[in-house]
Amino acid sequence: MPMQFDPPSGTRDFLAADVETRERAFTTIRSVFSRYGFEPLQTPAFERLEVLLGKYGEEGDKLIFKILRRGEHEASGEADLALRYDLTVPLARVAAAYGSQLPTPYKRYAIGPVWRADRPGKGRYREFIQCDLDTLGSTSAMADAEVICAVHDTLAELGVPGFRILLNSRHVLAGLLEVFGVPADPGPEVLITLDKLDKLAPAEIIAELTGRGLADATAAELVATMTAPDAAERIRAALKASEEGSAGLEEIDTMLSLVAGQVPADRVEFTPRLVRGLSYYTGPIWEVTAEGVPGSIAGGGRYDHLIEQAGGPDVPATGGSLGIERILLLLPGGGAGGHSRLDVAVTIMGPEYTQRSFALAAAARAAGLRASVYLGSSGKLGRQLKWASDQGARWALISGGAEQEAGTVTVRDMDSGEQAAVPVGVLTDHLRRAAAGGNH
Amino acid sequence: MPMQFDPPSGTRDFLAADVETRERAFTTIRSVFSRYGFEPLQTPAFERLEVLLGKYGEEGDKLIFKILRRGEHEASGEADLALRYDLTVPLARVAAAYGSQLPTPYKRYAIGPVWRADRPGKGRYREFIQCDLDTLGSTSAMADAEVICAVHDTLAELGVPGFRILLNSRHVLAGLLEVFGVPADPGPEVLITLDKLDKLAPAEIIAELTGRGLADATAAELVATMTAPDAAERIRAALKASEEGSAGLEEIDTMLSLVAGQVPADRVEFTPRLVRGLSYYTGPIWEVTAEGVPGSIAGGGRYDHLIEQAGGPDVPATGGSLGIERILLLLPGGGAGGHSRLDVAVTIMGPEYTQRSFALAAAARAAGLRASVYLGSSGKLGRQLKWASDQGARWALISGGAEQEAGTVTVRDMDSGEQAAVPVGVLTDHLRRAAAGGNH
Repeated sequence: MPMQFDPPSGTRDFLAADVETRERAFTTIRSVFSRYGFEPLQTPAFERLEVLLGKYGEEGDKLIFKILRRGEHEASGEADLALRYDLTVPLARVAAAYGSQLPTPYKRYAIGPVWRADRPGKGRYREFIQCDLDTLGSTSAMADAEVICAVHDTLAELGVPGFRILLNSRHVLAGLLEVFGVPADPGPEVLITLDKLDKLAPAEIIAELTGRGLADATAAELVATMTAPDAAERIRAALKASEEGSAGLEEIDTMLSLVAGQVPADRVEFTPRLVRGLSYYTGPIWEVTAEGVPGSIAGGGRYDHLIEQAGGPDVPATGGSLGIERILLLLPGGGAGGHSRLDVAVTIMGPEYTQRSFALAAAARAAGLRASVYLGSSGKLGRQLKWASDQGARWALISGGAEQEAGTVTVRDMDSGEQAAVPVGVLTDHLRRAAAGGNH
Repeated sequence: MPMQFDPPSGTRDFLAADVETRERAFTTIRSVFSRYGFEPLQTPAFERLEVLLGKYGEEGDKLIFKILRRGEHEASGEADLALRYDLTVPLARVAAAYGSQLPTPYKRYAIGPVWRADRPGKGRYREFIQCDLDTLGSTSAMADAEVICAVHDTLAELGVPGFRILLNSRHVLAGLLEVFGVPADPGPEVLITLDKLDKLAPAEIIAELTGRGLADATAAELVATMTAPDAAERIRAALKASEEGSAGLEEIDTMLSLVAGQVPADRVEFTPRLVRGLSYYTGPIWEVTAEGVPGSIAGGGRYDHLIEQAGGPDVPATGGSLGIERILLLLPGGGAGGHSRLDVAVTIMGPEYTQRSFALAAAARAAGLRASVYLGSSGKLGRQLKWASDQGARWALISGGAEQEAGTVTVRDMDSGEQAAVPVGVLTDHLRRAAAGGNH
């Protein structure tokens, strides 16, 4: 493929087989989210630059695609708009703009592209789909549990193999630091280090913790506790000494009992070492892992002040995000090779038969099937049947002089090669029955 | 709504009722297009700037949203990317990039946003959806007729009231100019003037034509012929004197006979005054008008060299575009007022019943219904039933101490206020039956 016709770096063209695989997944996701009472929201691709700037930290700001002013202002080289970087800042703007028009609580989902000027790499794109669901305006643990159940049902219906939901609470983590005597000051940094427990060796974690000012014995004991096979039990016992830790455990148990009826017990687990790096979480946090995939395929939690920080009203909020680009890689793909474009391919036996053949395609469509006439220039039947086969058609229709005289159409099964003469008047019914009976 | 929370000028936020109305229309469109054997294509929101520049004329270039270079290059004030301005230039790039991977002919549709820095106005947006279908690589009139039939079926299935397809051919127009002795030089300009026949008075058109160098008598006769009640007949007679005109008429008659089986006769008409301003058309051209809507709601034609001009290979092509933003205005809307978010609203009779109520929502979802528990803080049943009503729910489920003891749940019909005690074990079946039987 010549470079000049490639899509821009970090972006992709999706041909039919890919579009269909992706759209099928989005349809499943929308269906599950809406069954949980989440409603869709769509916002523009770009926002005013000042709405986005300063919301993603210094590093994030650098990754925002900025849009040049237009007309006489273009020469200034300044930007006034920018492509959205996530779906959360637009949600905050919408919550501020439409406050009373929105239901309370506002349960919304959004599925759409976001743009980040990251260095493109394997599985890392500059244009990619985000898929978020969030509940604004409820402090109830049921709101958190609902998000987890909806994510579970979505992954199950998509057919993601072997996924597990890891559950924790920021209150558990705060209680843990309290019990181990970690002062408030290095607290957040300690959590960032502990977040690496699934990537680094315990010794490395301990070294990083002591570097952050923890006593050697404290660091060693903390890591030993969190990585023990019975970590959950040991931490449950330890947290009894902390008020916040006890509250966190109660939160976890409430969540586990709420989701128990809907999420199989072996799919969800209290995971004290789960930290989630982002500092804005304020309550339950969770992540979903899948077999053979490093990192997570979904994650979320409660973030009671983020909407205000993002420019919206001060409302409690909880939500989650599906890493849909990673999830799509786990699904049985459409496979461009066997892509079927047509159910019925109609051949053209000569210029005098075009009108009749054109009408046969319409008769096939009336049966709810995908149908088209041959639009090429070859008059050879073999060539046209090759086309029918390339389209993945189940049947080819052939109608020349003999058929016209007999008032029939020849229906050729493209798998078996068998042919049947079907009266034109019952073609639609014939095809409808064949389509219903077939297991092609 | 405070200005600071508005979406950028010329763009829109779509809340749930609007998203649902729009997505329903897109689903219908995709379904019809795919029944005709057109396959989807999705390309990135932005293209490299040089791919777009120079493709839309000087005026078009000014309306392109350009994206600033990033990182150290941002300070240059230069752009290297731009938001796509239509779906045709990306199609040309794809045709060049994936040539042999694409089927021949390549029948594709694309539905997605494009961006133009036009002055925003009533019904004119800077971000709007385009909806195109095109066949690349076929010179057959059936390819043209197929596009027209697909557009007809789409508008019919969408429920667009009173639409009509106006059909003409560039060869008819060329023959007409030949017959009236218009020299080749002002020819295209003459057509641009004639394109205004439905907007300006005949005298104004005649004045503009003489201004372009036509003799007074020629201009008057041309306009008289094209605006006569029997224009089609008069032009058919006149065109016999021109070889290209006769070929054009034959093209029209071929098209009319091909679509006759699928498009009702009163919905399509040979319309000699139809010009379509764009210079790139090379064969049949068509437009769709609808009652009470100025201008057209769809249009297209054959454009055998445009793909090459747009940067792609030199392939014959024909296609059409639905003015989906205008069409959406013609459809019976969802109406934000009566928007239903839930089928089943589950009340919470007290903290001790949350787990049970949470599970009832799951039972309702198992019946395929949209269901959610009350996530607010009020313990009052009246307040919770008000929420259920605001959600547009058909049923509220109530489960407190009495129900728990009896092993039932109270199912309240939100329309009639009637309540029934349903054993918990059969709730899913009960709701499934009620939903199937209801005509809510």
